[in-house]
Amino acid sequence: MKNILGRDIPDYIEGYGEVRHYNGYLAGKGEKFKRAFKFKNILPGDDKLHRGLDTLMDKLPLKDGMVLSFHHHLRNGDYVLNMVMDEIAKRGYRDITIAASSIFPCHKDMVKHIENGVVTQIYAAYISGPVAEAISAGKLAKPAVMHTHGGRARIMESGDLNVDFAFIAAPTSDEYGNINGVDGKSACGALGYAHSDAQCADITIALTDNLVEYPNPRFEIDQTLIDYVVVVDAIGDPNGIVSGTTQITKNPIGLKIASLTSKFIKDSGYFKDGMSFQTGAGGISLAVAAEVREQMKKDEICGSFASGGITGYIVDMYKDGLFKSLFDVQCFDLEAIKSAKENPEHITMSASMYANSDNKGAVVNKLDVVILGATEMDANFNVNVTTTSDGKIMGGSGGHSDTSAGSKLSIIVSQLVNSRISVLKDKITTVTTPGETVDALVTEKGIAINPKRTDLIERFKDSNLPIKTIEELQQIAESMTGKPKDIEFGDKIVAVVEYRDGTVVDVIKDMKQ
Amino acid sequence: MKNILGRDIPDYIEGYGEVRHYNGYLAGKGEKFKRAFKFKNILPGDDKLHRGLDTLMDKLPLKDGMVLSFHHHLRNGDYVLNMVMDEIAKRGYRDITIAASSIFPCHKDMVKHIENGVVTQIYAAYISGPVAEAISAGKLAKPAVMHTHGGRARIMESGDLNVDFAFIAAPTSDEYGNINGVDGKSACGALGYAHSDAQCADITIALTDNLVEYPNPRFEIDQTLIDYVVVVDAIGDPNGIVSGTTQITKNPIGLKIASLTSKFIKDSGYFKDGMSFQTGAGGISLAVAAEVREQMKKDEICGSFASGGITGYIVDMYKDGLFKSLFDVQCFDLEAIKSAKENPEHITMSASMYANSDNKGAVVNKLDVVILGATEMDANFNVNVTTTSDGKIMGGSGGHSDTSAGSKLSIIVSQLVNSRISVLKDKITTVTTPGETVDALVTEKGIAINPKRTDLIERFKDSNLPIKTIEELQQIAESMTGKPKDIEFGDKIVAVVEYRDGTVVDVIKDMKQ
Repeated sequence: MKNILGRDIPDYIEGYGEVRHYNGYLAGKGEKFKRAFKFKNILPGDDKLHRGLDTLMDKLPLKDGMVLSFHHHLRNGDYVLNMVMDEIAKRGYRDITIAASSIFPCHKDMVKHIENGVVTQIYAAYISGPVAEAISAGKLAKPAVMHTHGGRARIMESGDLNVDFAFIAAPTSDEYGNINGVDGKSACGALGYAHSDAQCADITIALTDNLVEYPNPRFEIDQTLIDYVVVVDAIGDPNGIVSGTTQITKNPIGLKIASLTSKFIKDSGYFKDGMSFQTGAGGISLAVAAEVREQMKKDEICGSFASGGITGYIVDMYKDGLFKSLFDVQCFDLEAIKSAKENPEHITMSASMYANSDNKGAVVNKLDVVILGATEMDANFNVNVTTTSDGKIMGGSGGHSDTSAGSKLSIIVSQLVNSRISVLKDKITTVTTPGETVDALVTEKGIAINPKRTDLIERFKDSNLPIKTIEELQQIAESMTGKPKDIEFGDKIVAVVEYRDGTVVDVIKDMKQ
Repeated sequence: MKNILGRDIPDYIEGYGEVRHYNGYLAGKGEKFKRAFKFKNILPGDDKLHRGLDTLMDKLPLKDGMVLSFHHHLRNGDYVLNMVMDEIAKRGYRDITIAASSIFPCHKDMVKHIENGVVTQIYAAYISGPVAEAISAGKLAKPAVMHTHGGRARIMESGDLNVDFAFIAAPTSDEYGNINGVDGKSACGALGYAHSDAQCADITIALTDNLVEYPNPRFEIDQTLIDYVVVVDAIGDPNGIVSGTTQITKNPIGLKIASLTSKFIKDSGYFKDGMSFQTGAGGISLAVAAEVREQMKKDEICGSFASGGITGYIVDMYKDGLFKSLFDVQCFDLEAIKSAKENPEHITMSASMYANSDNKGAVVNKLDVVILGATEMDANFNVNVTTTSDGKIMGGSGGHSDTSAGSKLSIIVSQLVNSRISVLKDKITTVTTPGETVDALVTEKGIAINPKRTDLIERFKDSNLPIKTIEELQQIAESMTGKPKDIEFGDKIVAVVEYRDGTVVDVIKDMKQ
């Protein structure tokens, strides 16, 4: 059966279960539930501290089929997931579900756990590297569930997934589990994705390489949620924690797109005092931030907040007084980590506060302008950031769908044609973000506004900017690249793409060998 | 039937229900549950802000028999409870349960709601003034439930009581419900008791008299928990918010007790670097703080944290470097409010983090020394701080039972004889805090150590301090006062005293007219 986005989705998926079909980005409005939790209380005289993961493992009620959760603030420098999974595999447990907020190339060891049947299911908002390749090759027993950052909080808080053990990488902790991410040799800044894990898992374990005296006066997650504190030599590699993503593009085409985007924002009606703004850490997104920064200074605009994964570029805008505060769910670079530690208006927030559709109001709901990327897009403005155009998993929504839904102006920035491939397709490989939540596409060849935004079309009807229809852009691209060939997939569903409300927007099939 | 404290408690209490009998302060250890919550999610485009309580009331699904919650950080200056209840009464609703963290003389209007059947049950950790008198006189339809500060968080989080509507007095809020207590004309400091309300109520309403631009970068309770924000003229009277309780006693007997207490602490084994400490805002308690402060300076002791309701005296100790941080659930005076705003190591915490026995470790569990008061005490060290010795409700546990249970050294400070009345009785009027959690009583006539603390008795066996048995102190008192007469009560149970784990330690009967 086809869903409202025209994607072929069965009503039941083996290893996933019944499908709730996507039915519009606001269809999840109504009565919601937070799940009940069971736990053991900790009374005077009880101790939480363990020296060494193996002795703690001896004590935990581990079992086949359990669900383990991890968060990805240590990014490509994370040691915790591998460290825990090595212990689990050594002990012979099988059929494990991993709920990791994201999975990076550093987690390549998991491929052997997948091949050996130790790990049979994965939940994540973003997967890149060898694990993504293994899933695309059909090696994982059950379909991976690819949710959004806000969706992950929803899944845990609603009880859609019960986590048996949450492992929290804690750059600093005291013996009772008051933890933060801004101090210590493995400082990573905000710990936004770890909040739901700590709140919702049956048993929560903080692993730290920086144990401080009780009480650690600065904590992002507090002692009332932590069962055990384990001291280890190192939770991560500082060089990998801060990955090299946060560089402004030097590509002149990218810079042209950034310049057009900034002009589009300026004329959009949202460029005014109190504007809130989010951009990612990609090269073009950062170039947009640089352009917007100059424009805000020139026009003496004072924004309200910037949100998201925070970079040094956004911190600089805050320091310039262009934003009054920063809402930070994860830090992308050292400047952001330093700012999260030092600036009281640099607020670390949970993923639920950031982007969960099922609470009493996420930060994304208050977002004016967001800049997002795309691997592929169709004429309905549906966006793929999950798979490559030849069908391999290489990313995922992260906060893409969340911010696109929440913001008043969601702008996709992308080269129209890159390496002879057009971003615009008749049918995109995977739908990550539904087009009804995307307002515009800015490319080097022009800007397309979503036809449903009649207000924006009206506003730009006499603009000097190169406003075109998305069909016109697609024709320009195809005149340069020709029609792209359809790619062929196998029959096995290797991943399910869940929208933030838990409905299914798409499925990913295995790659034909 | 008699419980293990020798108190006569039925198995079932009309208007309260089945009784779980107190069975020791650690008997509640084991598997616990946090309740499930239902709520309505708030999506992009939804608005929370209302100007005026009456228009909001028109919109809320109010009903007879509902449960409304309030917190008491505005203390005897609170306008919110009366304001809301006037609207409720005006609209004709009846059989309301009030779950207020504490009730003060300023809430005297509630007496008429009790008399009219608008309010039929009250939950509180502390009740003084006309409402206490009305309850003691048997006017409330159902028995009041007098819990502890930590017990209140437990009651809400476990679902023992479902709150339909929580009303949060918010000294500062933005339009989306990011609220704090440290800014604005009605600043009261920490908002510790309001956390459970915001988390657990079906619908949570923040009332503010200081609406600030979104986002309020400083929040103690965040937007994901608030359904509505209502702007009102004033949430409280600043003169009543800071009540006149925080003065060191000038009474020479009180000062003598303070001096003895400080010496007792110094020799107790707990007086060393890293000591954690809590004292109340009563005159003798503050005098103890002053003595301990001088002793810590003299011996160059650096403590770890001070907790509780925080006063300017404790802030001064923090400023002196005698404590590294402050854990604050409510501020008692302006100095504390100022410090909560300014000092990063002055940490505001939820009542659950402070003192709930049913989470993964409350702050009270890490407390070394606590100084507490008593209206009455018996030879088993059971303490009454709930009723006067003629049987009238005039207080309640607050954090008394919580800190006494959690701390390593719980010291009761009291005049042995005051106005010809002995603090020591054969049978106390009401048991608030079980004697097994109390370690010593310090009076002007000597110090009694709980016989179960054989370690302390051994430590003080050659002490120069006036160590006596509690029976000796009682004899001294009775030689001055004679045996106190037993007071007579009616047959109606007007209040149930719940221990922090939800078991019943005692019941209070109506006063014989």
